[in-house]
Amino acid sequence: MTKLAHSMIRVLNEATSVDFYKSAFGLVVADRLDFDGFTLIYMTAPEGGFELELTVNKDRTTPYDLGDGYGHLAVVVEDLEAAHAQVEAAGGAPRDIVDFRPAGDRVARFFFAADPDGYQIEVIEKGGRFT
Amino acid sequence: MTKLAHSMIRVLNEATSVDFYKSAFGLVVADRLDFDGFTLIYMTAPEGGFELELTVNKDRTTPYDLGDGYGHLAVVVEDLEAAHAQVEAAGGAPRDIVDFRPAGDRVARFFFAADPDGYQIEVIEKGGRFT
Repeated sequence: MTKLAHSMIRVLNEATSVDFYKSAFGLVVADRLDFDGFTLIYMTAPEGGFELELTVNKDRTTPYDLGDGYGHLAVVVEDLEAAHAQVEAAGGAPRDIVDFRPAGDRVARFFFAADPDGYQIEVIEKGGRFT
Repeated sequence: MTKLAHSMIRVLNEATSVDFYKSAFGLVVADRLDFDGFTLIYMTAPEGGFELELTVNKDRTTPYDLGDGYGHLAVVVEDLEAAHAQVEAAGGAPRDIVDFRPAGDRVARFFFAADPDGYQIEVIEKGGRFT
């Protein structure tokens, strides 16, 4: 029995990232583990479940190389327009809302934003297969 | 209300990756959306919940640059030794099991493995904060 537990990204500044995920998406810090060279911060929705793990390597000063392999973390929200405004207020520079209907029927309605380190976040309106 | 929905990684070969996540971790394909230039495959634990989204860009032939920012997807399992053997049989080249006790008490017991594109997977034994 396997449970998907968390996704880990390395970030430069703990306070900046924690503030962003709180204000943009309402995530909360479920746990914070501090070690000699690094700190792990586990964030999740208030009701719990899958976690976003932020790793802060204390001696890292240069931006991380995000490559082109990892894509994004996706969140589902009830009110996409409200989420767009909330992400914008949090400094997430949300892109335009896309109504994705490649063959007529809606697959998803969403927008992308970026966290303080540049990681992409997909914000999807609840509906269809995204519940 | 925000729900963490999925994490997306880009992979080169759909069958290779789907087979790996099935045989190494028992994930199942919850959905497969095929478009002109790309295919999206949503995989999850059999009981559902958070999904791993695999994106296959059909014209991509060179390996993705994984950078050093994105870390890993973590899964929690009941039996770490059995999971280690299962991942090894699936070709995930699991590293040694680590009993992580930086200050005496166990924080986690885990091992790392790699998927066919080189993405790291952390396999954690159920216990402590990892439930």
